[in-house]
Amino acid sequence: ATPTSAVPELAVIGGDGIGPEVTAEALKVLGATIGSDSFTTRDYALGAEHWKATGEVLSDETLASISSADAIVLGAVGAAPGSTEVPSGLLERGLLLKLRFALDQGVNLRPSVWYPGTPTPLAPEVTSAGPIDFVVCREGTEGLYCGNGGVVRAGTPQEIATEVSINTAFGVERVVRDAFSRARARRGRLTLVHKHNVLVNAGSLWRRVVEEVAADFPDVEQDYLHVDAVTIAMVREPQRFDVIVTDNLFGDIITDLAGAVTGGIGLAPSANINTSGQFPSMFEPVHGSAPDIAGTGRADPTAAISSMALLLDHLGRPADADRIRAAVSADIASRLGASARTTSQIGDAVAALV
Amino acid sequence: ATPTSAVPELAVIGGDGIGPEVTAEALKVLGATIGSDSFTTRDYALGAEHWKATGEVLSDETLASISSADAIVLGAVGAAPGSTEVPSGLLERGLLLKLRFALDQGVNLRPSVWYPGTPTPLAPEVTSAGPIDFVVCREGTEGLYCGNGGVVRAGTPQEIATEVSINTAFGVERVVRDAFSRARARRGRLTLVHKHNVLVNAGSLWRRVVEEVAADFPDVEQDYLHVDAVTIAMVREPQRFDVIVTDNLFGDIITDLAGAVTGGIGLAPSANINTSGQFPSMFEPVHGSAPDIAGTGRADPTAAISSMALLLDHLGRPADADRIRAAVSADIASRLGASARTTSQIGDAVAALV
Ligand SMILES: CC(C)[C@H](C(=O)O)[C@@H](O)C(=O)O
Ligand SMILES: CC(C)[C@H](C(=O)O)[C@@H](O)C(=O)O
Repeated sequence: ATPTSAVPELAVIGGDGIGPEVTAEALKVLGATIGSDSFTTRDYALGAEHWKATGEVLSDETLASISSADAIVLGAVGAAPGSTEVPSGLLERGLLLKLRFALDQGVNLRPSVWYPGTPTPLAPEVTSAGPIDFVVCREGTEGLYCGNGGVVRAGTPQEIATEVSINTAFGVERVVRDAFSRARARRGRLTLVHKHNVLVNAGSLWRRVVEEVAADFPDVEQDYLHVDAVTIAMVREPQRFDVIVTDNLFGDIITDLAGAVTGGIGLAPSANINTSGQFPSMFEPVHGSAPDIAGTGRADPTAAISSMALLLDHLGRPADADRIRAAVSADIASRLGASARTTSQIGDAVAALV
Repeated sequence: ATPTSAVPELAVIGGDGIGPEVTAEALKVLGATIGSDSFTTRDYALGAEHWKATGEVLSDETLASISSADAIVLGAVGAAPGSTEVPSGLLERGLLLKLRFALDQGVNLRPSVWYPGTPTPLAPEVTSAGPIDFVVCREGTEGLYCGNGGVVRAGTPQEIATEVSINTAFGVERVVRDAFSRARARRGRLTLVHKHNVLVNAGSLWRRVVEEVAADFPDVEQDYLHVDAVTIAMVREPQRFDVIVTDNLFGDIITDLAGAVTGGIGLAPSANINTSGQFPSMFEPVHGSAPDIAGTGRADPTAAISSMALLLDHLGRPADADRIRAAVSADIASRLGASARTTSQIGDAVAALV
């Protein structure tokens, strides 16, 4: 499963809603970049439709098969937030999070770059203050995402429901070390995001680990912000961020906000990295399955396409990754004032540019 | 402790940093509004400085004394986020949260209004789409704020730190019912914010309670957003919100963002309401103690002043509350293009306007 095979095999999970549509464009661009004979793909039908048809969320056999791939390309899974057809959490916890956890993808990497000219809800005073270019290293296998907790006296006026956040020195150090390395290779600044004044147990652990790892990175400057304060900084002064390291839930929340301020989550890629190489890493857009626009051709495949750059970084082909980033950036620049394009038109355009 | 005394007694906790400065202006405006003989105050020296001098965070005696007041006016407590002088969480958990929990302040009410012309990080396209005026009903006595959780193998590479979120039907229904009532009295729209696709135990409880209470409020329209998606909506379309109901931590995070988009948390008031009237409610700005600007006269007392309007609502004087809101709104309008004023100049100006 390490990305060393001559011709890497990609497990492809298009998923639900717009997932398969954006994934097709991502693979189109990947092929245009490194040649479609430079990788093989194997499709896995998984997600809401597959579950409704077969009852399978993710069987052990399917998981084992996916685990043998060199990397995973995922579109999006899950029904609409208000859907009653699929029980809430079934696909998120049984498929998406199961992959992240079973494949021990400890670093969920989410870069945010704002391309000048891209529509943003931020005022020109904010965006003109300098380039916005940061990355969030979100822990991917712990915290409130563990699925710990339970319910007593369910459905009664005495119901008690709990959720347990589990944080280990092992998991925290893994993502903190990754974040420090990235900061060193970037602008040398790391921000820990937590809420240590309330969550004192987990907060102390995160702070201690950051302090300890910092000793190995004397060239990296570090600071700290509470998660509530980060939302303020993100809209007032996003330029202050270089690398942010945070836990699973805080990372989930702030990367959606980061996506929104840098042009929408339609542009935000992500990588779920297995840092040991024992299992495949997974590349997916930050956005969800957006069933409301599925089939209309209105889905923007840019996030999925940019995730292919993260895949190529991971496969040890940074120059090819940069070609995708440059093509995406040029394509985004060309949108200014142009009329709207369909999902596949955007894919074609980026493929032509790489 | 019910607000029925002819002359209500206010327990005043100025606290740390800019806390005492903004509190003084809030009481100045309160006096100008209802007459300074319409309430009495009793000061409590609490916070970082008091702790350093005496070792007291909040003794049982002090708590008992505060409990006998009709309401509490709080400035801000806590040291700077990076401070090592005061252990992280000591004052937050031992004083601020202890008050919220011991006085069973189940509804943490946080209104957000954007006054046109006020500096905002949002683009004119966003702010011009309509009035921004919503309120967050944040649960105040449960969730991850309970202080449940612990540490094993502290300080070692095998450390495990947990945080437990506790949610009860009782606590959830209390805040949900309050939120529905407010929605009915406002624009009739309630949004539940959670992350039920991951936090399925707590999420199911919140959803069930909202559904059940909704039966008593057929005139209130409701919808749901995941907490990550809310951060996007908050910066792209804050007009969509009327009343938001959510848990303690999500409420903490999204109200800082709400404050930022509506002109800064220097303007954001809050009320911690004991809905049964058994214990006093507490009125405080959303912002913290900002030790970096303490003593400079640069603190904006508007949030503390607006909290007095929430106090007057609570004391059954809505007309007086509206006078404060109108004065604040007029004062904010007068800022446009004017030069910066000190903390007490703003207090004087609002006091003159009520
Ligand atoms: C779908 C959901 C489980 C997921 C998460 O919360 O991690 C998504 O929001 C994300 O950010 O990838
Ligand atoms: C100081 C802190 C404990 C507090 C909280 O998290 O509730 C503050 O951020 C707030 O929002 O009132």
